[in-house]
Amino acid sequence: MAAEKVRFGIIGCARVATIVARRIGLTANSSVYAVASRSVDKAKEFANNLSSEVKAYGSYEQLLDDPCVDAVYMPLPTSLHLHWALKAAHKKKHILLEKPPALTVEDLDTIIEACNTNGVQFMDGTMWMHHPRTPKMKAFLQSPELFGELKSVHSVFTIAVAGKFFEEDIRVKPDLDAHGALGDVGWYCIRAILWANDYEMPQSVTAHPGPILNEAGVITACGATFSWQDGRMATFHCSFHSQFSMDLSVHGSKGILRLHDFVIPYEEGSGSYFSSTDAKLVEMDTIWGVPSEHRVTTELPQETLMVQEFASLVKSIQESGGKPDPHWPSISRKTQILLNVVKTSIQEGLICVTLRSK
Amino acid sequence: MAAEKVRFGIIGCARVATIVARRIGLTANSSVYAVASRSVDKAKEFANNLSSEVKAYGSYEQLLDDPCVDAVYMPLPTSLHLHWALKAAHKKKHILLEKPPALTVEDLDTIIEACNTNGVQFMDGTMWMHHPRTPKMKAFLQSPELFGELKSVHSVFTIAVAGKFFEEDIRVKPDLDAHGALGDVGWYCIRAILWANDYEMPQSVTAHPGPILNEAGVITACGATFSWQDGRMATFHCSFHSQFSMDLSVHGSKGILRLHDFVIPYEEGSGSYFSSTDAKLVEMDTIWGVPSEHRVTTELPQETLMVQEFASLVKSIQESGGKPDPHWPSISRKTQILLNVVKTSIQEGLICVTLRSK
Repeated sequence: MAAEKVRFGIIGCARVATIVARRIGLTANSSVYAVASRSVDKAKEFANNLSSEVKAYGSYEQLLDDPCVDAVYMPLPTSLHLHWALKAAHKKKHILLEKPPALTVEDLDTIIEACNTNGVQFMDGTMWMHHPRTPKMKAFLQSPELFGELKSVHSVFTIAVAGKFFEEDIRVKPDLDAHGALGDVGWYCIRAILWANDYEMPQSVTAHPGPILNEAGVITACGATFSWQDGRMATFHCSFHSQFSMDLSVHGSKGILRLHDFVIPYEEGSGSYFSSTDAKLVEMDTIWGVPSEHRVTTELPQETLMVQEFASLVKSIQESGGKPDPHWPSISRKTQILLNVVKTSIQEGLICVTLRSK
Repeated sequence: MAAEKVRFGIIGCARVATIVARRIGLTANSSVYAVASRSVDKAKEFANNLSSEVKAYGSYEQLLDDPCVDAVYMPLPTSLHLHWALKAAHKKKHILLEKPPALTVEDLDTIIEACNTNGVQFMDGTMWMHHPRTPKMKAFLQSPELFGELKSVHSVFTIAVAGKFFEEDIRVKPDLDAHGALGDVGWYCIRAILWANDYEMPQSVTAHPGPILNEAGVITACGATFSWQDGRMATFHCSFHSQFSMDLSVHGSKGILRLHDFVIPYEEGSGSYFSSTDAKLVEMDTIWGVPSEHRVTTELPQETLMVQEFASLVKSIQESGGKPDPHWPSISRKTQILLNVVKTSIQEGLICVTLRSK
């Protein structure tokens, strides 16, 4: 007998929902069971595009009331996360929440606490964490011979926006995705910095001069430096004003890692990273070693792998009655803390914010 | 009759002098005529390694007194530049000065003024400016269709040091190369930022948190953000503590330019850069366009092209009695200003330093 699949309810029919819904369909352990929109017609259209078997609800509440829904994928505007994630947790639905998960750390803590109290798994939608390239890169960073000690991380994620984005998109609206570019793309940079640092929080965070805010005060470009006690440092820059770039470089005492598509690989079936170890200038310092390209293939897209990982945690809780895995909420929380601290630094005039140790 | 070559005197037998001396030998318009070291034996050895015709002097003064020397290449520690560059200018020698050219902007102004007064050309040794890749990249940045408006520049130059570098190298000695990593590698990042911005000076400079200084107060790692009035920004990071990396990325409203060997190309015969224009996420935002690689070949190494450019300016002054070209001293000066302002920001506790307009 085939194991039962985790039945997903999708709350909200945002563009990203279409991607993830299709990705869920590719997993071995989960299926899209229902979708909900505030408009039942929109929900029906969305559901029909997936499969005639997918239920369509005209309210989020109805979907959450369906006892057949095991888990929800929630690509709502950030400002709605607290309300609907809490409702979902109270209905014992496991939650795959789009990033950024919350407006504030307090809100996220409330969500995570509700998940823990109700015994449901929490994970945010940072999909690149689940690409098989990511653990390969981590192995390189953990090698004393190939990489050595971590010294600095630099990440730039900029996206080209088109049309009436700056007037109409939810990502520039203070009442919807109030974190703007910092939440939409800076989130990934911050996560990458934490990832490279084994999730050790920096000692201080200072936003860079020249952040760009729209008239409503929403960040459309910004950056910051993170500093650790032992001299490690990291910088990031995120923006809605430049062309697409998704750069990550990690610098160690012996090696360098870099890639330019860390969030969304250029191609679906594989992703590359570049590394060098003990690169030396030769021929009287006039030439040096070209970094090696390492290509990691993947049978499934990273969003599918994310859903599979999440669903397997859900299955494990369902089948063994175990507790939710604390890793995913923990790294969400650290990313959220740094995101909000960057915002604080910007709001307070680019001050250096010292973080309390744990 | 072949045109006479510009006769170079090399002052100081540093490692970089060997490279440039050989590069001078590859030019069509210049030759190494003499070398000077404080030790005549060292000068003789250095000279013999080049050619039996090269004169060897046991003092810098003697070389400067030789009327056959048209121009000097001066790879001395920064602290000695003011003294010897002034002497060279007063002896009517054209000056190709290793970077960073001076300890302070005032010192550099004194040098440049002496060059102008004596009608001799000044150029600093920022060799990557002379690679044929550089104007190709500039053409891309200047294209409204391919690149659009400049938004941000990010550069990271880190070098792996070995052995007793931190105890012995002149680049960590406050009485020799007092600018440390900022002068040795940060100089190139700052120049690249200015180059991408058509040498328009930023409005403000703020050093990043976490600069690393040695016991003598010499910077071994640091970074900064530059901001322009119109929202353009740039960041750089330089360090002696990480592996080799020489990254430059330039982000525009329509295009991206990046390369990872901007100071020293991986290979001698060519250099690549990567660009993309209007890269779009496709297939439901899950894949996107790989940037194009553009390879620019060069028959001569960039140091040779630098010397040729310098020597052709010298010839032009010698033959037509014209004035020195103000472009090269002007961009040296702007780079020096920003270098010293970064240092000021660090010394004053990471303050935001506002630059006076011109």
